[in-house]
Amino acid sequence: MTHKIAILGASGYTGAELVRLIATHPTMDIVAMSADRKAGMEMGAVFPHLRHLDLPTLCKIEEIDFADVDLCFCALPHATSQRVIKALPDTVKVVDLSADFRIRDPEEYAKWYGGQHDAIELQQEAVYGLTEFYRDDIKTARLVAGTGCNAATGQFVLRPLIAAGVIDLDHIILDLKCAVSGAGRSLKENLLHAELSEGYSAYAVGGTHRHLGEFDQEFSKVAGREVKIQFTPHLMPANRGILATAYVHGNADEVLATLEAAYADEPFVEVLPKGETPNVKHVRASNFCHIGVVADRIEGRVIVVAVLDNLTKGSSGQALQNANLMLGEEETEGLMLAPVFP
Amino acid sequence: MTHKIAILGASGYTGAELVRLIATHPTMDIVAMSADRKAGMEMGAVFPHLRHLDLPTLCKIEEIDFADVDLCFCALPHATSQRVIKALPDTVKVVDLSADFRIRDPEEYAKWYGGQHDAIELQQEAVYGLTEFYRDDIKTARLVAGTGCNAATGQFVLRPLIAAGVIDLDHIILDLKCAVSGAGRSLKENLLHAELSEGYSAYAVGGTHRHLGEFDQEFSKVAGREVKIQFTPHLMPANRGILATAYVHGNADEVLATLEAAYADEPFVEVLPKGETPNVKHVRASNFCHIGVVADRIEGRVIVVAVLDNLTKGSSGQALQNANLMLGEEETEGLMLAPVFP
Amino acid sequence: MTHKIAILGASGYTGAELVRLIATHPTMDIVAMSADRKAGMEMGAVFPHLRHLDLPTLCKIEEIDFADVDLCFCALPHATSQRVIKALPDTVKVVDLSADFRIRDPEEYAKWYGGQHDAIELQQEAVYGLTEFYRDDIKTARLVAGTGCNAATGQFVLRPLIAAGVIDLDHIILDLKCAVSGAGRSLKENLLHAELSEGYSAYAVGGTHRHLGEFDQEFSKVAGREVKIQFTPHLMPANRGILATAYVHGNADEVLATLEAAYADEPFVEVLPKGETPNVKHVRASNFCHIGVVADRIEGRVIVVAVLDNLTKGSSGQALQNANLMLGEEETEGLMLAPVFP
Amino acid sequence: MTHKIAILGASGYTGAELVRLIATHPTMDIVAMSADRKAGMEMGAVFPHLRHLDLPTLCKIEEIDFADVDLCFCALPHATSQRVIKALPDTVKVVDLSADFRIRDPEEYAKWYGGQHDAIELQQEAVYGLTEFYRDDIKTARLVAGTGCNAATGQFVLRPLIAAGVIDLDHIILDLKCAVSGAGRSLKENLLHAELSEGYSAYAVGGTHRHLGEFDQEFSKVAGREVKIQFTPHLMPANRGILATAYVHGNADEVLATLEAAYADEPFVEVLPKGETPNVKHVRASNFCHIGVVADRIEGRVIVVAVLDNLTKGSSGQALQNANLMLGEEETEGLMLAPVFP
Repeated sequence: MTHKIAILGASGYTGAELVRLIATHPTMDIVAMSADRKAGMEMGAVFPHLRHLDLPTLCKIEEIDFADVDLCFCALPHATSQRVIKALPDTVKVVDLSADFRIRDPEEYAKWYGGQHDAIELQQEAVYGLTEFYRDDIKTARLVAGTGCNAATGQFVLRPLIAAGVIDLDHIILDLKCAVSGAGRSLKENLLHAELSEGYSAYAVGGTHRHLGEFDQEFSKVAGREVKIQFTPHLMPANRGILATAYVHGNADEVLATLEAAYADEPFVEVLPKGETPNVKHVRASNFCHIGVVADRIEGRVIVVAVLDNLTKGSSGQALQNANLMLGEEETEGLMLAPVFP
Repeated sequence: MTHKIAILGASGYTGAELVRLIATHPTMDIVAMSADRKAGMEMGAVFPHLRHLDLPTLCKIEEIDFADVDLCFCALPHATSQRVIKALPDTVKVVDLSADFRIRDPEEYAKWYGGQHDAIELQQEAVYGLTEFYRDDIKTARLVAGTGCNAATGQFVLRPLIAAGVIDLDHIILDLKCAVSGAGRSLKENLLHAELSEGYSAYAVGGTHRHLGEFDQEFSKVAGREVKIQFTPHLMPANRGILATAYVHGNADEVLATLEAAYADEPFVEVLPKGETPNVKHVRASNFCHIGVVADRIEGRVIVVAVLDNLTKGSSGQALQNANLMLGEEETEGLMLAPVFP
Repeated sequence: MTHKIAILGASGYTGAELVRLIATHPTMDIVAMSADRKAGMEMGAVFPHLRHLDLPTLCKIEEIDFADVDLCFCALPHATSQRVIKALPDTVKVVDLSADFRIRDPEEYAKWYGGQHDAIELQQEAVYGLTEFYRDDIKTARLVAGTGCNAATGQFVLRPLIAAGVIDLDHIILDLKCAVSGAGRSLKENLLHAELSEGYSAYAVGGTHRHLGEFDQEFSKVAGREVKIQFTPHLMPANRGILATAYVHGNADEVLATLEAAYADEPFVEVLPKGETPNVKHVRASNFCHIGVVADRIEGRVIVVAVLDNLTKGSSGQALQNANLMLGEEETEGLMLAPVFP
Repeated sequence: MTHKIAILGASGYTGAELVRLIATHPTMDIVAMSADRKAGMEMGAVFPHLRHLDLPTLCKIEEIDFADVDLCFCALPHATSQRVIKALPDTVKVVDLSADFRIRDPEEYAKWYGGQHDAIELQQEAVYGLTEFYRDDIKTARLVAGTGCNAATGQFVLRPLIAAGVIDLDHIILDLKCAVSGAGRSLKENLLHAELSEGYSAYAVGGTHRHLGEFDQEFSKVAGREVKIQFTPHLMPANRGILATAYVHGNADEVLATLEAAYADEPFVEVLPKGETPNVKHVRASNFCHIGVVADRIEGRVIVVAVLDNLTKGSSGQALQNANLMLGEEETEGLMLAPVFP
């Protein structure tokens, strides 16, 4: 059976990545694609790398007949997303890639995103889209909220460790190195090649990055008490990929064993042999996440390093993984593409 | 039916690219992989991006039982390749990715490659692997010689134009811009990141690049007279891709029409609308080739620009395309992966 | 004696490059810097790499007292420049970095720049700023028009050859590879790191690039007849540098001897030994130009390759070189900085 | 007065960087340059970006007449350096760029560098070359040991804080992001453009990097007790620069005030306004170090970020700064070059 798919906000990087992945998916058929300012254009004109595909012309959201749609990927900007999704008929399953439905608590949402939520009931209903930890809920969900790409990376490292109680909850530091596509296709001076290439810097230093809202929510829930981590992202002169270096207090063997147990049956998460750490390039353009554990020379300190591709496992790949579950397909369908190296 | 596949010389970039592509091919099963100096290692240790795959341990060529092999990809260095292939049982179909069987004329071979050929009969038998122009021969061939990656790019531009007689054969200039993976995994100072990044330069200037042997052979054959082009490659600070800028004398509309006719039914070659030229990034990690035609302001001069990924369409993708034909599979099987952008 | 310097349009890359060079110039003192939209800001806030310097606060042009200024570098956008310079008191010497005064013929100007010139008398008076060829005129000029960066590169290769009559004037092809800082700090999708890194493409194909106006004017003047070349620029995934590959008809030894003679006494132009060609990285952040000559395998065809840094020798370094001459300083003052490698 | 300078080991990146800096130094004259395997070659053939300079031909060390040399920069590999320097006449001042004389304690040396030291007396005599903290000793030293580039970066952040007692000595984490030129011109697969570009990874994880020997020695000395920090370097897809992110326990205002006081009169160290953090690109190819301080959202936690260019301030620039002091020149002579941006 073929599922009829719509992509809203198809002219951004996550939209294009969805099309790339669905292009070889055997049972999904893209029937509608919206892009507000580019309505009327062909996708191949916006993204020439997709010109060989037979895709619907970009349109405005209001031109889409959602009666014909089984599942809708929503890759719209934050705040826009909640308004659009609220208006969709409830026969349509939705995978949202924005930040709008990641936070359950309206006050927390307002704190991190600076305003009242427009669809508070949906905010309660939405399932958090970190597949490996919410698989059963996702299968039956109507609305799944894709996680932040940084938030996904950090949780792959820390979530099992917090759940197992093998690390000190008051001394968790997450130093992230993020490629630039995570910033989207926005026109900013610091994202220009001339300014970013050969340069790198920290940003949102001091605990101001919005993905902390997700960390706080999820880690506190898992721990059964408030957990606040330190989190500093850095912008890298590279296009795809996140590398997270986590500094935790614990025992390296216990940490490794906990991660190995957590991901033993996971198709996309690979725990490396003890002492090895991963390279962000080894998961490029794929849905894989590699994690490595090393004991520090200081007794009781452990470093855990994880990598994934922000556009794939961190966003559109995760979205497709969730869509597969929601539609009753194999979870890995269309996602076993090997990483592109070099 | 599943075909049993061997890859000789699997520890180089073209070997890894073959594995990447075959990973999602439905009817190919890799049963043996050789890598002389890395025999005994797992492929995932040599190329960690492939660690999720269940692959045979790397071995020496002499350890492979070729009775169990239907088709062998040979990604060995030049000169080694001819000795190895000569020794293979003739029940095994072979797609060679080296330069050893590209040149028919032993003297031309000796001129460009600096030595006598060790398998002259095979040199005669081998079919030149530019699929779009040798499709029928490839279907029934036992040995197919993959083309040079630069040679492929230049031929996609020029071959139909020479065949159709729409350009002046004495004024053909091909200025190529080649990404660094074309140089393989060799350890040379000029291939270091510190030396190549932010730098670019011409090489093999003046008509000394070996791929001219292929151009001379193929263009002269197509034209029915000797054709010698000017060809200057440039090394780019990028990892994948070739962009060829061809300067020819002719009529732009005729040139465009000729190319459109030549590639009308080709699944992997896209001719762009008049006046547009392609970006090498729009075919990255894919088997596609994009070609664009522009009239110069000087009457009678035309610029044709083509792009492809040297590791995919220029090498391993082409090899798989040919293997599909040789094994009776759909030519496009495993190759419709969309380009990776950004 | 210290010269009082103003920089108009200091918030772009050429403005910043002027400041970098003047920072160690012994007899120039920057007394005023304008940046319309950033007036009131410190230069160190706009360009943090200059924060250690004691510079005047950015202001609006009308706030500058030009009675206090000996020489003014004008790094304003095209069209703006002519209006501003027309209004300056004629006691101020001016080095303009825009395109406004490069073209002598008002009709040619209108053709390439799409409009009437606002300062036609100055257009006649301005001296073309290619120092090596207009040195004497520059010494006594009040207004010097900096050349286009591509135009400078092409002329270093071709001008002596055309003047000496050693190449066929009807078969000149210039294939340029240009780094992205040539496009300035403009916010365009194709200049984003995510889109440019790992990508390259031709632009202004077919003879539509404005620098052809300079080539046409200068080459025709030197030749004493109309000369039209073919010129195709390509955008490179690199920040600084232009590499020009020229395809000409002639004798390689004659070409080499002509270039060696032309640049024998030039401090900034280096002609390489026969058969060697330059790398753009070897002139990075410097005022040097390297040129190499190679004979093609086809008798009578020659390839000449030249490199320079578009922001230095192609723009701000050239401007400083001219300013030195206009102010009676050593031509090389402040400009002998060695290239930055790696 | 002109000082006669020798550079031993001139064919590596730090040797080339020394030449670049000395090229515009008014009172230093390079009289001899050694490069063992490249003896007999011109420097311009090894590093074409230096071809405009009039430099001595590369020779073997034993060919140098050290009676003619005032100061010798020694850019040889570790272990080689100690043997060569031991044999130099003691009339020659020496700035060593290797690791050989950084560690005072022979046992600590043996632990980190895996062997007995060959010049133990010199090991005692050598002055540690972190100019800002050893200025007086350096002025009268005969032998100065240049610091590790990572070690310099970390000390600029942490040394004043440890000395002032404003941070918790048991909770110091230093996460470094290092450009590739720090690895020198060595031919390794992971340093190839094809492997490093678009990739990044941690290395020497767990407290095994040799620069920890310097941190342990210096921080313990400053603190008057043993101090062990956590230190994880990461290899970046960039050529020059180190960015250090330090996670400390303390009060942000105190930390900032301490750093401001420590560097108030330093010509090369810039402390940014509170809340700002630096970009590695803003110190490129210069001798500057920028430092920024931010309070974390968690009370009592502070993030300090510092950047410098590993080849300049981290190595050859520091060496020249020390040589200036040893020769009685202005400390900043030849070093006020503005950073290169973009």
